[in-house]
Amino acid sequence: MDLQAYLDDFTARDWPQAEDGTVRFAMVGLGWWTMEFAIPATEVLDHLETTVVVSSTTEKAEGVAEDHESIEHGLTYDEFQAGEATDAYDAVYVATPNALHLPYVEAAAEFDKDVLCEKPLEASTERAEKLVEAAEDVTLGVEYRMHVQPAVRMMRKLVDAGFIGDVAMVHGNMSQPLLDINDNYDQWRLDPDMAGPGASVTDLGVYSINTTRFVIDEDPVAVTATDWSGHEAFDEVPDERAAFTVEFPDGVVAACTASQNAQETSNLRIIGTEGELLLEDAFLSGDRELTITRGETTITTEFDGIEETRRSLEYFADHLLTDTDIHGDGEHGIVDQRAIDAVYEAAESGERVEL
Amino acid sequence: MDLQAYLDDFTARDWPQAEDGTVRFAMVGLGWWTMEFAIPATEVLDHLETTVVVSSTTEKAEGVAEDHESIEHGLTYDEFQAGEATDAYDAVYVATPNALHLPYVEAAAEFDKDVLCEKPLEASTERAEKLVEAAEDVTLGVEYRMHVQPAVRMMRKLVDAGFIGDVAMVHGNMSQPLLDINDNYDQWRLDPDMAGPGASVTDLGVYSINTTRFVIDEDPVAVTATDWSGHEAFDEVPDERAAFTVEFPDGVVAACTASQNAQETSNLRIIGTEGELLLEDAFLSGDRELTITRGETTITTEFDGIEETRRSLEYFADHLLTDTDIHGDGEHGIVDQRAIDAVYEAAESGERVEL
Repeated sequence: MDLQAYLDDFTARDWPQAEDGTVRFAMVGLGWWTMEFAIPATEVLDHLETTVVVSSTTEKAEGVAEDHESIEHGLTYDEFQAGEATDAYDAVYVATPNALHLPYVEAAAEFDKDVLCEKPLEASTERAEKLVEAAEDVTLGVEYRMHVQPAVRMMRKLVDAGFIGDVAMVHGNMSQPLLDINDNYDQWRLDPDMAGPGASVTDLGVYSINTTRFVIDEDPVAVTATDWSGHEAFDEVPDERAAFTVEFPDGVVAACTASQNAQETSNLRIIGTEGELLLEDAFLSGDRELTITRGETTITTEFDGIEETRRSLEYFADHLLTDTDIHGDGEHGIVDQRAIDAVYEAAESGERVEL
Repeated sequence: MDLQAYLDDFTARDWPQAEDGTVRFAMVGLGWWTMEFAIPATEVLDHLETTVVVSSTTEKAEGVAEDHESIEHGLTYDEFQAGEATDAYDAVYVATPNALHLPYVEAAAEFDKDVLCEKPLEASTERAEKLVEAAEDVTLGVEYRMHVQPAVRMMRKLVDAGFIGDVAMVHGNMSQPLLDINDNYDQWRLDPDMAGPGASVTDLGVYSINTTRFVIDEDPVAVTATDWSGHEAFDEVPDERAAFTVEFPDGVVAACTASQNAQETSNLRIIGTEGELLLEDAFLSGDRELTITRGETTITTEFDGIEETRRSLEYFADHLLTDTDIHGDGEHGIVDQRAIDAVYEAAESGERVEL
């Protein structure tokens, strides 16, 4: 196998591919991500279709329905929960504020619909557990996206092959200037009733935790943390910025940061006993640069950006159509939720929290 | 000013330069660093000379003396402490194991000799405080080296100028395969009686702490930490690997790691509200790569390796000869020592420790 074939392997769809059938989606929550990424993805993919959209008002939902040929129904949340148009969709993508995942997943499961739920699962571990319990008879996936990212999949394979020796330490960061994306101080990501215990660890820090889990194939066992808010917009949340440590089995220690009010940057560094992997622009939807070092040799590999939401939705639909198990199910999502809650508890108490 | 002039500014010696005079050094402790870096540096610098070497045995000290033209005396530690050959040197470089800094600094100060002491100051805060008190009537410098590193100085200037906005978060790591450098399991760096509370934070983690202090011009206020040892050689120390958070004023949070048993790599990332600075090979004595991002513009600057020990010894001697204040005095060193002790305390107790 030559190098190009080796690299191409990571951009391949290495899961069971659907040959026939279509998964018709109800898109619940018509925010930025749904409109810019999720619905457009279903328009170009073979086995997916958006047939229903659900939002706060009839006006908004029907407006979106009118703009898209495949969409048959524009429903309010109440209408969705009341069971309208259940014949028109097979699966539900839930992209509402975190604290509204539970009621819509409950409704979807009640109608026997499979669910792809945005990360994190919910606003607290307790609610996430209820969500997973509610969805126990349907397929539930958590929309982490990184498990379909070629650069991240290459990191996982290199670690598994022992290319950097034993994993010793990890650095993860994700930060973005949230107020440049949405300048409303009252947006749900800054509201603990909607977002969960905070703004940055919940929404961005989860990438460092979850992607490390994927790359090293271990789950966290304890955390320490500190956080800080100073900007007026972050008055209600403790973590305009956060730094936290995460312990994994076999003494792997991670040092992570997250901020919703800093330069847009994201990276994941895995330091082993014999090498190092550094992924720049790790958690953003663009090109990736992976720097691979073993001993004194370093190579840098560029990965063209893939449309992650497209790939990830396709992954979910293929698994539904082929009736195979997905990576990132509800139990998988609860592990992150517990870690997130532990980070906030550790920051508030000043004490190490075991998982 | 053009770009080249701007960059050259950071490679310049921006401290008072000695015009006349020579500082004659007694080199105390003839380990790897003294032999490979410190003594050779004095052989090529104009205003420095090694005239005395001090080691455990007469044989070793005199052997080194015979191999170097400028060296007049090879003393044992006992002879040094007894005040032999004090007329032959003006200043003392102390590069013994950490827990032996205090007695030789005490002796040097008693003989009214200025002291450049390897980092960290001592094996504990209590001993470091005694050391600083003993040296109160002489000039005491801590040999951090990063304050003379052009790439680090450029980072400090960019931060001070607000180039990346307000500093929000920091990532620092240093790791190396200590047993590849010295395969003796009984070496002093793995012996808490000689090294202090541990092996990795004391010797390597201090770079992340101290260089962050230099770049952002603030001192740490609290830490959380976790550490782990698994390899047999690290049986006596808790931190074959460590991850720790450091809080600085104004809500700057740092996430750091250190390991004496991992791939050789070191880096310092400063994330601001409007940009980012990433220094690769931050704390090693080779070429540096500094990646500077502001908004969506990124430039990468390569800095040729400078011989840091040479530059740093020259810095110390120039300040002695011009009778000017140095960066990195004893009080400065105690701040790091307190932070190091706090990291170990936090890791052991599982509790955040305020400084």
